[in-house]
Amino acid sequence: MINVFINGYGTVGKRVADAVALQKDMKIIGVSKRTPDFDAEQAIKKGFDLYCVEGADVDAFKKRGMETNGYLKDIKDSVDVVIDGAPGKQGAKNMELYKSLGLNAIFQGGEDASIGTSFNAHANFDKNIGQKYIRVVSCNTTGLARTLSCLNEVNAIKKVKAVMIRRAADPGDNKRGPINAIVPEVKVPSHHGPDLKTVLPVDIETIAVKVPTTLMHLHTVMVDLKKEMKREEVIDLFNNRSRVILVSKEDGIDSTADIMEFAKNLGRNRGDMYEINVWKDSINVKDGMLYYIQAVHQESDIVPENVDAIRAMFDLKKRDESIEMTNKALGIL
Amino acid sequence: MINVFINGYGTVGKRVADAVALQKDMKIIGVSKRTPDFDAEQAIKKGFDLYCVEGADVDAFKKRGMETNGYLKDIKDSVDVVIDGAPGKQGAKNMELYKSLGLNAIFQGGEDASIGTSFNAHANFDKNIGQKYIRVVSCNTTGLARTLSCLNEVNAIKKVKAVMIRRAADPGDNKRGPINAIVPEVKVPSHHGPDLKTVLPVDIETIAVKVPTTLMHLHTVMVDLKKEMKREEVIDLFNNRSRVILVSKEDGIDSTADIMEFAKNLGRNRGDMYEINVWKDSINVKDGMLYYIQAVHQESDIVPENVDAIRAMFDLKKRDESIEMTNKALGIL
Amino acid sequence: MINVFINGYGTVGKRVADAVALQKDMKIIGVSKRTPDFDAEQAIKKGFDLYCVEGADVDAFKKRGMETNGYLKDIKDSVDVVIDGAPGKQGAKNMELYKSLGLNAIFQGGEDASIGTSFNAHANFDKNIGQKYIRVVSCNTTGLARTLSCLNEVNAIKKVKAVMIRRAADPGDNKRGPINAIVPEVKVPSHHGPDLKTVLPVDIETIAVKVPTTLMHLHTVMVDLKKEMKREEVIDLFNNRSRVILVSKEDGIDSTADIMEFAKNLGRNRGDMYEINVWKDSINVKDGMLYYIQAVHQESDIVPENVDAIRAMFDLKKRDESIEMTNKALGIL
Amino acid sequence: MINVFINGYGTVGKRVADAVALQKDMKIIGVSKRTPDFDAEQAIKKGFDLYCVEGADVDAFKKRGMETNGYLKDIKDSVDVVIDGAPGKQGAKNMELYKSLGLNAIFQGGEDASIGTSFNAHANFDKNIGQKYIRVVSCNTTGLARTLSCLNEVNAIKKVKAVMIRRAADPGDNKRGPINAIVPEVKVPSHHGPDLKTVLPVDIETIAVKVPTTLMHLHTVMVDLKKEMKREEVIDLFNNRSRVILVSKEDGIDSTADIMEFAKNLGRNRGDMYEINVWKDSINVKDGMLYYIQAVHQESDIVPENVDAIRAMFDLKKRDESIEMTNKALGIL
Repeated sequence: MINVFINGYGTVGKRVADAVALQKDMKIIGVSKRTPDFDAEQAIKKGFDLYCVEGADVDAFKKRGMETNGYLKDIKDSVDVVIDGAPGKQGAKNMELYKSLGLNAIFQGGEDASIGTSFNAHANFDKNIGQKYIRVVSCNTTGLARTLSCLNEVNAIKKVKAVMIRRAADPGDNKRGPINAIVPEVKVPSHHGPDLKTVLPVDIETIAVKVPTTLMHLHTVMVDLKKEMKREEVIDLFNNRSRVILVSKEDGIDSTADIMEFAKNLGRNRGDMYEINVWKDSINVKDGMLYYIQAVHQESDIVPENVDAIRAMFDLKKRDESIEMTNKALGIL
Repeated sequence: MINVFINGYGTVGKRVADAVALQKDMKIIGVSKRTPDFDAEQAIKKGFDLYCVEGADVDAFKKRGMETNGYLKDIKDSVDVVIDGAPGKQGAKNMELYKSLGLNAIFQGGEDASIGTSFNAHANFDKNIGQKYIRVVSCNTTGLARTLSCLNEVNAIKKVKAVMIRRAADPGDNKRGPINAIVPEVKVPSHHGPDLKTVLPVDIETIAVKVPTTLMHLHTVMVDLKKEMKREEVIDLFNNRSRVILVSKEDGIDSTADIMEFAKNLGRNRGDMYEINVWKDSINVKDGMLYYIQAVHQESDIVPENVDAIRAMFDLKKRDESIEMTNKALGIL
Repeated sequence: MINVFINGYGTVGKRVADAVALQKDMKIIGVSKRTPDFDAEQAIKKGFDLYCVEGADVDAFKKRGMETNGYLKDIKDSVDVVIDGAPGKQGAKNMELYKSLGLNAIFQGGEDASIGTSFNAHANFDKNIGQKYIRVVSCNTTGLARTLSCLNEVNAIKKVKAVMIRRAADPGDNKRGPINAIVPEVKVPSHHGPDLKTVLPVDIETIAVKVPTTLMHLHTVMVDLKKEMKREEVIDLFNNRSRVILVSKEDGIDSTADIMEFAKNLGRNRGDMYEINVWKDSINVKDGMLYYIQAVHQESDIVPENVDAIRAMFDLKKRDESIEMTNKALGIL
Repeated sequence: MINVFINGYGTVGKRVADAVALQKDMKIIGVSKRTPDFDAEQAIKKGFDLYCVEGADVDAFKKRGMETNGYLKDIKDSVDVVIDGAPGKQGAKNMELYKSLGLNAIFQGGEDASIGTSFNAHANFDKNIGQKYIRVVSCNTTGLARTLSCLNEVNAIKKVKAVMIRRAADPGDNKRGPINAIVPEVKVPSHHGPDLKTVLPVDIETIAVKVPTTLMHLHTVMVDLKKEMKREEVIDLFNNRSRVILVSKEDGIDSTADIMEFAKNLGRNRGDMYEINVWKDSINVKDGMLYYIQAVHQESDIVPENVDAIRAMFDLKKRDESIEMTNKALGIL
């Protein structure tokens, strides 16, 4: 039984905590927060032991009537792995703490690739076996890895171009904008292409643009095929791959709003959508190019990946066994 | 055991279906849909018997591989009550069908008040006992009734002014705008005041404005008090009333986005928030006026009310018993 | 001829610069910028002498090929008045500079009222005659002062309640949110009421809420009347007051978006709307209460006020003459 | 002097009317409206003769105090060309009227290509000389034609892929959404590629996505180059082409909101941006592919094209002369 500590019980941290709690071979032994807000309160109600993030004010928690159990260092001897749920670039700072405490750690995609080995379950589980520091690649990179790994396994990819239309803020964020603008990343190609290469060896260039929505990212993918493929073959590849779902206008799925409504129908935790959703209607092969459009739930697609990363780190299971266990526990289609 | 048929398995219908299914004294015997979309598919997966809305094309369902069981008329003998989940004003048209089939029916707040007796559990449960046609008042009116009924019970209300800042579309709606505008209802006072009076006899005037958000409505309420009250008394009243929650900036709740994030934390069906959320910080008494700000989850606050309306209709339970049963089944705080 | 220096050529500063340049009795002798962006470039193209804001990096301007003329201190002997166009609270810091240079200054509404006398042309022009430091009240307060001063002049106001639905960011802002939330100011009543009292002695309480739009603020105003008034009298009052316009659904004006479209039709500088727009349809008297809804263009309603404030400061003209001159120069209806 | 009638004085019609009125070789002899709204009122104030759109209710105009001059048929003998400003697909219906009246007409890009010859000034002016029915291609297609025609003239294009991130509604539209969703056009490639080919013979595939913003479209363009090109050569090409502007983050232009703010600075009619804005920072050549990102002001990029289309239709001027005249009159950079 692997003991998991969630350092930073926020958007990612609280989701991974719930996911870990559903597995048979691992459990949560603590979660940490910087501020005594409703997330902290909820952690206690769920029965998680609450800790303070290093540097946080314990008294502030006391004032709000929340019992805390100290800091990560106070429980370090019982911790097998820390899931770092800190916002981008903060993880690199936390690394020093983990090293000083001698702790294994899994970071999120906001960190630089140099922080550890990069991870995506379908794309490169085996390369992460036994690693002390693993980085689960970002929601966007995970989205690309999910579908492109299918194509890569049948050796179909010559070159990829992807345009990533990103949601500018998460649903619970009431500070970030823009309210009414499109904000391109003017560095073209963007950093997402190189990031994908840390988990999947494909020739890819990406362009990124931010838009005023909170629900999901959307990717338009164009693959220069190395060999002839029919639309139906691609549909079959995606259909046979877990963590990828085909949706269509026939089902009434016209937009990212419909996908999130569909996700709520599934009755999952927080209405999350762990799978990448590819519009079946958009899959098309023309003049040797494969086109498709996919949507990525930025808050949750990396949740099952974090679970699998733990299993790779401790060599608990083989890739396919781990993926299947995780999927089953999370109700992934 | 009351047999409930959901006519129109959409935003309201599917939520009421789930809520009814959780009660001990009633059950879903069928749900109907107009189009064979992902909601229809989900209904089948949940084990609900799927019917076609009168006039819908059965073949369209067949083509999509969905088995249907005919129309409402085909099951009418087993139905005790129809929950009409049709969009505003369509319920009035459906009324003819229900009458011709001799069926009891519960309508939603988009219908005119003349369609039946108006209902809010805390405000006027008893007036609805034994009624054949009941209208659960709209999400906005329900929101006002919830908090104002507390004040009315202690005879504290002289006059009320409320400004209702309405979300312009539901989260799953990708057609309706505006994207970047504020749209006032220029008829001042608006129709919401008179609507509240159908369930609560208070002197109220309302103003309504639409804004480009999908999450929740927000009400600013100003009550000219009939007697002296302290802020703390109001806080106590709201605290002691179920289906009303006090939230605060201290908890990290700054906006409707934070409330919906908090709701997701609770792990409820679809991340719904059945309760009206009043900002504790906003409750203030000054110069004989009570002020407060509340948020209303337009998709779900009327869900427990529909369940209670069924109990009133068939005189299954007394008001407080029904409310408690419903609350417990839905996990209402 | 009054020599005006614009310290901070941003959203407000550039508009006041253009407005001052159109007057016969004042002129722009310099404008300052912190960063060498497209606004700075435009200032030069318009023929304004460009200066650096105190502390700004002159070399950064040079690198971008923009000639600057030093700092405010370098031209102080020719300056009669500085228009402080700095963002909220920065003006208070700038005050020290102005004092050390012995300069008169006009501040914007983001500053505390204590910084100088508060100004609104129709409401209290005379109180500002000869003042060295004047604060033009904020866009929202200006909006309230415009219409309420009409009612106050006929001694019609007993008490006012206003709910202010504020645009969360300006159109050119791509950073600030929220994208999808309503953010109430939980301190109720809000600070806007007391702010209005600095220019107009009325009994008022206000509530403020931020919404995800960039175009205009919208106010719902409820006036407890001191005497009987008919709807038509109110319409006449507003009709006869400059800087207030009546709009209506009949004209196709349903929202703030329509007003801004109407403003563009007028062919004014930047498509600005200096006037407060009151929906004629919304004006209603019921049970001794007057109701109306108005929209405020946050970027420009204070522009003519700044011009009049200069005239008051130097006692150039009487109130009505100044207002008429300003209106004529700006094409105000 | 060409007599121009604007049939449909809306978003496009009113802009073309203003632009035509600024030319020396053409004039507006009438504009028509369907409803007596503020646009109609403004047309009268501007001195345009107001007509009713065929089928519109003259009495409705009279009630609002607006004098109309009948219908297009009443003035047909004086009309040289009709600018059809009707919403998409309505132009095709209007065609019958124009034919029955024997009138030349210029349509907008919402019509099918079959309605007449397709037009873009830089791309194919000459092909439209003497044509009776011309279609100015859509705002998006015009945007692509502007920059790609530069590259095509130096024979640099092998293949193009473009992803078009479209604003979902115009700024004055308060009905259309989505408020919070990304809506892909699931038909991939989209119809925009073929549409471009009606004016420019290039191999292009396009993908289109709608996002909740009102200001501008944004295109990410990827060109497989036929020959080696340096970034600087592309910059020179765009710099030397009128109706294309290079912008950059150095200027403070980070988003479409900044571009529209920049446009307001220019002091043009309605704050319009006739030029296509290419981010200089985004122009990059890598592995034989040219990348760039451009923004398109959907309301106005087609305005100068309509003017040039009139000159082509009547063979008034050669391409470059016409473009120069139009640019000068409109203040195009």
